[in-house]
Amino acid sequence: MRQASARQARLTKPAGSLGRLEGLAVRLAGMTGRLDPPLREAVIFTLAADHGVAAEGVSAYPREVTAQMVLNFLRGGAAINVLAREVGARVVIADIGVDADLPPHPELRAVKVRRGTDSITRGPAMTVDQAEQAVEVGRSLVRGQALDVALTGDMGIGNTTASAALICALTDLEPALVVGRGTGIDDEGLKRKVAAVRDALRINRVSIARGPIDALAAVGGLEIAGLAGVILAAAEARKPVIIDGFISGAAALVAAALHPAAIGYMIASHRSSELGHAAVLDRLGLDPLLDLDLRLGEGTGAALALPIVRAAVRLLNEMATFDEAGVSDRA
Amino acid sequence: MRQASARQARLTKPAGSLGRLEGLAVRLAGMTGRLDPPLREAVIFTLAADHGVAAEGVSAYPREVTAQMVLNFLRGGAAINVLAREVGARVVIADIGVDADLPPHPELRAVKVRRGTDSITRGPAMTVDQAEQAVEVGRSLVRGQALDVALTGDMGIGNTTASAALICALTDLEPALVVGRGTGIDDEGLKRKVAAVRDALRINRVSIARGPIDALAAVGGLEIAGLAGVILAAAEARKPVIIDGFISGAAALVAAALHPAAIGYMIASHRSSELGHAAVLDRLGLDPLLDLDLRLGEGTGAALALPIVRAAVRLLNEMATFDEAGVSDRA
Repeated sequence: MRQASARQARLTKPAGSLGRLEGLAVRLAGMTGRLDPPLREAVIFTLAADHGVAAEGVSAYPREVTAQMVLNFLRGGAAINVLAREVGARVVIADIGVDADLPPHPELRAVKVRRGTDSITRGPAMTVDQAEQAVEVGRSLVRGQALDVALTGDMGIGNTTASAALICALTDLEPALVVGRGTGIDDEGLKRKVAAVRDALRINRVSIARGPIDALAAVGGLEIAGLAGVILAAAEARKPVIIDGFISGAAALVAAALHPAAIGYMIASHRSSELGHAAVLDRLGLDPLLDLDLRLGEGTGAALALPIVRAAVRLLNEMATFDEAGVSDRA
Repeated sequence: MRQASARQARLTKPAGSLGRLEGLAVRLAGMTGRLDPPLREAVIFTLAADHGVAAEGVSAYPREVTAQMVLNFLRGGAAINVLAREVGARVVIADIGVDADLPPHPELRAVKVRRGTDSITRGPAMTVDQAEQAVEVGRSLVRGQALDVALTGDMGIGNTTASAALICALTDLEPALVVGRGTGIDDEGLKRKVAAVRDALRINRVSIARGPIDALAAVGGLEIAGLAGVILAAAEARKPVIIDGFISGAAALVAAALHPAAIGYMIASHRSSELGHAAVLDRLGLDPLLDLDLRLGEGTGAALALPIVRAAVRLLNEMATFDEAGVSDRA
């Protein structure tokens, strides 16, 4: 990082004029131990799972959309497929807990831990064993890929409810400040959603108090657990991980609670328009690169941030210095 | 635009969940008359010129840096060269008013209108004829290119002072709210810069009152005039034009004053950290895509926004609809 900062100061530009890109390139040098880390092999991990709480009227879409969207991912017709093609990234689609029998497909990682979670308003979403298993699945997905940078993504009807509950459990934030409209529920739905999160936090309060894995099992979800594993495995391999929005933010909080050093490998891609996301980034101490009112998930925000991350590294490495270019430095 | 909006509503995503990208794709359809405008041929027009006011201690860098940086552009060592390569764009470097004899180079457009401007604190920067000529040079640079999208960029020691004066002249904003630190002057330099802008506005007040071209000639600069021409020519050809930061913003105000319809073709790439830039965007009614504390110019902010603009169009055109994908729409 010292070398990267020293080089930034010699490049043919006024000091600091590349703003956030300068610090980003320095952070990437710290993560990878290299001034010029490769970022070509970018893999988006889009993990899909169902949520028992979806039965309680907390989403604008019916539960079967989770499985339908996995098929859409496999046919290349979803937003994340389009963006992956555009920015030069691969998408790994994993069924870590969809409540449907998905047909085998060469592009689908069939790593189902269980068929959806139980409703968090009635008790734990899953057992602690299952949560640990889902984290391990996420880790193994990363280990199975030759990658330079990991990106997180999600699909799961009901998962903004589970993520909101988990965020509240890990931060003590008030549900009313965290629960948002997700895919676009109306005012009545939002009331039900806040009530569901309050119920979940109350009924699971003993488990939540035991620690992050217990909280994850109690009020989280299978894709959230898997994404925590993706983040931890990337950090362990000293690879940067670009964090998508609200659901990925909940997973990042879990990863940070388990291993605080993992935060050093996280790059916040964007500030979602989902209500509690800004507070999550604030807790993690991460400043997002983009603020485009996105709230789609799938990894779309992370994919959009990838060109900026790559640009930051190319600028540090390919720009001429004042000496090389024969340009006068400031008087 | 109606067709684009209707298609947005049928794509496999919650309505509005792609945030700013949705409206951007709809605007691009309006500009070009096509749902799927090509954006492959992207040309960054980086126009360079000198400013008489640079002799008055308003910049942290010596005046000869303008010519030195043009040579750096031609060797491919500047930030804009790196970004152009990374995002897939071409850079057109034009000497529209550098106060030096630059050697001929196949990549340099030698379109010098005059060697730098006179100091705006003593009288007009240039004649009205020269300002009109510089606008026409900018137009002809665009007409000479086969392009799908134009991007604006600048180089010129002293040009944040001229831009600030021109912005104040065209908007009646107070100099203290517009003049920023440019390449990074200290507190004393900032005082000189504000004073220079006040002097320029006072001594040129009669010219300024005559209209935008007269104001441009009085307190603007040659690259600013050229960029106004670039913007106008892009708009006339129904091509989108991605506007860089503070200097390009001043040029955009001139273009908008001459032909208000040109605003419809402008895409604001980023909010610069230069003091008055947010006010310029506000006057133009443009919401910037990025906010990364950039203040380098050259077209760097515009280049960084290009992948986002392209992504917006790809999403509109390549995503499956609910019907095509067999995904249930909201209940």
